[in-house]
Amino acid sequence: MNERFAKTPAPPYYAVIFTSLLSQKDAGYAAMGDAMFDLALKQPGCLGAESARDSERLGITVSYWRDEDSIRAWKAQAQHLVAQKYGIDKWYTHYELRIAKVERAYSGPEGRSLD
Amino acid sequence: MNERFAKTPAPPYYAVIFTSLLSQKDAGYAAMGDAMFDLALKQPGCLGAESARDSERLGITVSYWRDEDSIRAWKAQAQHLVAQKYGIDKWYTHYELRIAKVERAYSGPEGRSLD
Repeated sequence: MNERFAKTPAPPYYAVIFTSLLSQKDAGYAAMGDAMFDLALKQPGCLGAESARDSERLGITVSYWRDEDSIRAWKAQAQHLVAQKYGIDKWYTHYELRIAKVERAYSGPEGRSLD
Repeated sequence: MNERFAKTPAPPYYAVIFTSLLSQKDAGYAAMGDAMFDLALKQPGCLGAESARDSERLGITVSYWRDEDSIRAWKAQAQHLVAQKYGIDKWYTHYELRIAKVERAYSGPEGRSLD
């Protein structure tokens, strides 16, 4: 399986779905975004994350968590707080953040060799 | 707000998180993917969808649904079944599909004019 996919355990667990549109003034975003992705993966209770941003600057990042306490701790993490402030002040034209409980999960395609 | 964002109601509702890696042999995928995105939005119970695919061919599509019955009906929709078969047979190197119940949702940034 490709390293871009999160290797999550059997449900239930939580997903944080973060959809964002970057403004044209995104100086510093790429480095901070990468750093936050890596930092999230190191947090207690983080089960993995997946992220894609297209040429129109729309990105979707889904991080997976053991429980809601883990999500709350990540929201309050010091470096992450700084990144959130930059995002709100400068980088994001708009974002939607949704917290969801994963109930079922499937992988595919079955029966084919995978990367 | 930008049209790339789903205008979802207050939770609870369901999210289908579909992360996929396209193979190099993706003839026909772009047209089918666009058609399926538009078709999903027309299904009973669909609340919206968001999608991004990056230059490394990793894509995340999140569709939002009123309830699990709506998701089941979409999975069994005739044109969608054809698309699923093409995806499994030809287009996808790997995919992960997760079904989650959205419990909380936030928009931002607050206090700034939005697109």
